[in-house]
Amino acid sequence: MASPRVSEHRYRRRVQFVEVDSARIVHFSHFFRYMEEAEHALWRAAGLSIATRGDGFGYPRVAASFEYHAPLHLEEEFDVHLRIVKITRASMAYACAVSRDGERIATGGLTVVCVTRGEDGRMRSAPFPDDVRNRFEVSAEAGA
Amino acid sequence: MASPRVSEHRYRRRVQFVEVDSARIVHFSHFFRYMEEAEHALWRAAGLSIATRGDGFGYPRVAASFEYHAPLHLEEEFDVHLRIVKITRASMAYACAVSRDGERIATGGLTVVCVTRGEDGRMRSAPFPDDVRNRFEVSAEAGA
Amino acid sequence: MASPRVSEHRYRRRVQFVEVDSARIVHFSHFFRYMEEAEHALWRAAGLSIATRGDGFGYPRVAASFEYHAPLHLEEEFDVHLRIVKITRASMAYACAVSRDGERIATGGLTVVCVTRGEDGRMRSAPFPDDVRNRFEVSAEAGA
Amino acid sequence: MASPRVSEHRYRRRVQFVEVDSARIVHFSHFFRYMEEAEHALWRAAGLSIATRGDGFGYPRVAASFEYHAPLHLEEEFDVHLRIVKITRASMAYACAVSRDGERIATGGLTVVCVTRGEDGRMRSAPFPDDVRNRFEVSAEAGA
Repeated sequence: MASPRVSEHRYRRRVQFVEVDSARIVHFSHFFRYMEEAEHALWRAAGLSIATRGDGFGYPRVAASFEYHAPLHLEEEFDVHLRIVKITRASMAYACAVSRDGERIATGGLTVVCVTRGEDGRMRSAPFPDDVRNRFEVSAEAGA
Repeated sequence: MASPRVSEHRYRRRVQFVEVDSARIVHFSHFFRYMEEAEHALWRAAGLSIATRGDGFGYPRVAASFEYHAPLHLEEEFDVHLRIVKITRASMAYACAVSRDGERIATGGLTVVCVTRGEDGRMRSAPFPDDVRNRFEVSAEAGA
Repeated sequence: MASPRVSEHRYRRRVQFVEVDSARIVHFSHFFRYMEEAEHALWRAAGLSIATRGDGFGYPRVAASFEYHAPLHLEEEFDVHLRIVKITRASMAYACAVSRDGERIATGGLTVVCVTRGEDGRMRSAPFPDDVRNRFEVSAEAGA
Repeated sequence: MASPRVSEHRYRRRVQFVEVDSARIVHFSHFFRYMEEAEHALWRAAGLSIATRGDGFGYPRVAASFEYHAPLHLEEEFDVHLRIVKITRASMAYACAVSRDGERIATGGLTVVCVTRGEDGRMRSAPFPDDVRNRFEVSAEAGA
């Protein structure tokens, strides 16, 4: 019997020293890494690994964005809530909310596409392999 | 006599090894750092330093985004073209185009706000100081 | 009654995608960040925070080194074992062992000094404050 | 006629915002990246690329160290002087000096080995290929 499809994931993390800039807040570029860490945790929760499958498929990012509402500081713990908001034949979009003790810190989005590499080494769009596609579904909150 | 206001800047850079991921392309998070490097180069071109003024003003980022059109690879040289597309009393928005030998690699945007820190250490929105505001203007291409 | 002094700490971590280079192994520079993450976890275990005390003291690094014995790969879990091997009036030295399932991955060292900032903004060596010094002791394994 | 062998390289760089930590100095981990940037610039000066040769050889790091003498600050320009101090059949060692306007900032070392990947994907020590080995020599200063 198959395990249920995955549509969202909550990932908890602590701010590390190297992520904090000279204004004593987390540098804005790190939120994109937090979002990606949460994405890979979501794939692991689905029984998959985004990058070490060795099946020739890859998942490059085609769009990424964040809006910043409040700063994060050194050693604070925070949550990254990632939801799948759209799945097409060869792409997937996530919505991301970063919060600290329920306070909204940042909201973002990430779109990835499925590709294979041709013999010339160039990446080409390809449908998700079934064993990947069958593990995910759009979050019920997505229309909210 | 004042030097002309600055509205855009071209910044040239080479891809470094640590910026390349296991798919052998520049990790998407680094484009945000390239965009910020270009922003600080633009401020230097205007005779300013974004972070070491010691005047109590800071310029946190409130929005950042990129769309990725083609990959960058190890040791490639590329250009970051940053233009000011909007200036308000207390915020500034940039448009960013990353290219390699004229090929479009990525296009992005960044919005920063001007703040001061109150006695409680919290950041509050504030109008740009005159010696900063008077150095910048919106790029003529902005409406294009 | 005071809690026992801290002399070592074990810190567990998973390799993240951005830490892996184009040779598909963790980039050597990240081991220094892993060591520092373990150091700050050790300070937290001692009831302290290395960087947000606001007491005017800082702990810059004066020496850091690693020898690499075997590679770490994407999403692998690993352990960082940090031990205090020397404490002087104004400095502390750690030995660090990174392992994966008991296999030796890398061994390193880190020396930090205690400083205060003078009115001119320059850092000057200073004895550890008592409430910091009294929380640490040299690891019994240190002579091994 | 062959161009002269390369034994050292001077690499100039500006401190970027993301490299500065909350103590307003360059984070110690970035010096290892500066050293590697200088190494790759040295290889380019020798007409080589360390990582994109596609000849099956790789150059993982087996040891890296730095001692820190004075801090680097935001937007400062600095020099990285890298010298080859030892070459064996399958390894090469560099000495590195980071300075700012002649002031000594940090001194370090890096040892890399030459490897090939076997059919099982494991890296094995291998002699440098001739077209690499013939491009380098030990710096005359090395004995100093």
